[in-house]
This record gives sequence, C-alpha cells and structure tokens, in this order.
Amino acid sequence: MTISVSSLQRLPKYLRVLKKLQENDVEYVSSTYIANELKLNSIQVRKDLAYVSSNDGKARIGFKVSELIDDIENFLDLNNIKDAIVVGAGSLGHALMNYKGFENNINIIMAFDNDHRKCDNKKVFHIDKLENLIKRMNIHIAIMTLPKENAQEVCDRLVKSGIRGIWNFSPVTLKVPETVKVRNEDLSSSLAVLLKQMNDK
Amino acid sequence: MTISVSSLQRLPKYLRVLKKLQENDVEYVSSTYIANELKLNSIQVRKDLAYVSSNDGKARIGFKVSELIDDIENFLDLNNIKDAIVVGAGSLGHALMNYKGFENNINIIMAFDNDHRKCDNKKVFHIDKLENLIKRMNIHIAIMTLPKENAQEVCDRLVKSGIRGIWNFSPVTLKVPETVKVRNEDLSSSLAVLLKQMNDK
Repeated sequence: MTISVSSLQRLPKYLRVLKKLQENDVEYVSSTYIANELKLNSIQVRKDLAYVSSNDGKARIGFKVSELIDDIENFLDLNNIKDAIVVGAGSLGHALMNYKGFENNINIIMAFDNDHRKCDNKKVFHIDKLENLIKRMNIHIAIMTLPKENAQEVCDRLVKSGIRGIWNFSPVTLKVPETVKVRNEDLSSSLAVLLKQMNDK
Repeated sequence: MTISVSSLQRLPKYLRVLKKLQENDVEYVSSTYIANELKLNSIQVRKDLAYVSSNDGKARIGFKVSELIDDIENFLDLNNIKDAIVVGAGSLGHALMNYKGFENNINIIMAFDNDHRKCDNKKVFHIDKLENLIKRMNIHIAIMTLPKENAQEVCDRLVKSGIRGIWNFSPVTLKVPETVKVRNEDLSSSLAVLLKQMNDK
C-alpha cells in the first residue's frame, strides 16, 4: 500500500503545526487538536499519522510532539537536502530561487535562461550549458518556469541529462518517460477554482 | 449537486487543449483526445464536460471545439475580469504581479507592503493604506504572499475591508468567516510530494 497524494500533501502541514507546538514547549498533542488547527477531519489526521509513525497517541495523553516531528521528517526524507536547478530565470523563476520555504527540502544551486542578458555567470547560466552542468553537478531535480512554447523541448533535454523529478510551473502537460516524476503547479487552474467558489456563494 | 474541486481544476486544462485545437483550425474533438493529451481518464473527461456543457459530443464527430470553449469560459466566468491586489511585495508577490497566465481571470491593480522602500506609489503602496484603498477601489480578491508571522493579522484586516476571496501563498492556515473563500497554495507541500514520489520509484 502506498500513501495517497492527498495524505502526502497534508504531512508538511502537520509538521508546521507540530513545530509551532514545539517552539511553545508543548510536549503532547491530540489528533483532534491538529485537525482543528488545519480544519481537517480528525479521523483522517489519525489515519495519516498512523501511516508514518508507530507513535500511537495514547488516550488522554496524545502523541509525543518531538517523536511525530522526527517520524514525519524521516518519512519525507527531509533534512536530506537535494540540489535543484531552475529553468527559466524570469520573475517566477527568481521568486522561487529566493523563496524561504524550501530550505529543508532542496537547495537551488543555479538557474538557466536563453536570454544572455539574464545570465550573470554566478547563479544564472545560459541554457546552452544545461546538459553539461546537470551532468557535472549530478543534479536530479529541475523546476521549470518557462513559457509554454519551449517547455516540452527543454523538458526532453532535462530528461536526457539525467533529471528524474520536474516541478512544472509552465502551463503545459509534459510528456516524459515513466521513470521521471512530474508535478504540475498550474497557477491559473488554482485561481479559477477560487473565483468559482466565490461566485457560488 | 455542485462540481468537485478536482473537476473544477481540470476545466482550465481542457480549455488549454481546446484553444490549441482552435488555433490549428480543428473543429471537432473527442473526449478521448482531450483525455490523452492531459493523461486523464476519458470517462472522467466526459463527465466533467457534461457538467458544464449541453454540447453532447456526437458519436464519431465529437464535440464542437468552439462551443465547448464558450461553455467552459461561461461556467468559469472568464472574460469577466476582476480586480485583485497582492499583499506582500516580496519576490513572489512581484512574480505573481508579472505573471502572464492570469490575464483573463484577474487584473492585479496594486500591491501592499510594510516596507517603505518597496513602495513606489505607482503600483506598490504602504500597508497602512490597505483598508482605505480596498474599499475605495471596491476590491474583493487578495493574493497573500506574506511571511507567516503577519499573515493572520493582515488576513483579518482584509476580511474587515470587504475581501471575499483570498489566494494564500503564506504557509499558515488562515482563520476566516464562512462567507470568505480561501485557497491555499502550499508550495512546500507540493514540493514534498514530488520528492517523495521520486524516492518511491
């Protein structure tokens, strides 16, 4: 049995709640507390936690906060920081490079762009060097923030160079071999959902 | 019966495929074609389309592309562009202001920040002016890209000023009244899913 994507997505949220408790020196927590903080169903929370932790949350006392944190971090393989690159050094690419929330997941070591003016030779390189640097630095994760026109072509080059995971912010459905994992971050779709939900009210 | 969030999220993707067909002067399309392009199940695609369109995709001929586009756009209330603001003019806030993909959904007319140096009085204003400008410009949508420390406090101010929809990129679960819709864009969670899926391979 593998964990569902929706359960997986909830784990970092639990971690956030647990770390806040830890900062406030709280030692034990109930699944109901976590569920309330995140507006989730407590049965679902209990199930997710059972999946990643053998810490079984004794009645009345609850889960030990520090153990749950360790279990989730181990499960998500956090603190084992992986190098990543950004392809497309536009404003979204730069924003992701500067984003503070990824620090215990990935380390974005460089970006690529086809515009020579954007290449500073420190962190932003011309896309001609893509294959060479990916192989040399042994990188497996790429974040794509390219216009849709070039996305598939660059994706093919990434895959050929050894990239195994692509976080895709370009509004296209990428075609990749089965061994490569793609996660699509479709910002326009997400916005459309919010707008529709506002209308339905 | 209301449409599910996952169906809603697929609609902009259908639109993308349909518009590409229209550009290439293709007049009819099957749900199987759309499903293949997006790596989805064709039964699911057919169900989603039946929900938003009375265009029922005749056997052998398929759906009329132009009609499907109209139906989805009407359903999502696209082309009725709404004004929005960004709160937090850091690099992610700026990236969203410059992002080209929202143009037929929202028009980001201004941003707010508590750092005077970021305020240019053209598009970025000091957060002291938040309530005043939201009310004066009659804005209902806010995009939050604040650090987690200030997020809830600013959220309360947005709600009091009349904001009814919040697209939240801050890593916190916001507490809002039921009349306000929130959509969380939790980039770290999303990244964690990709990394886990790469590991499981």
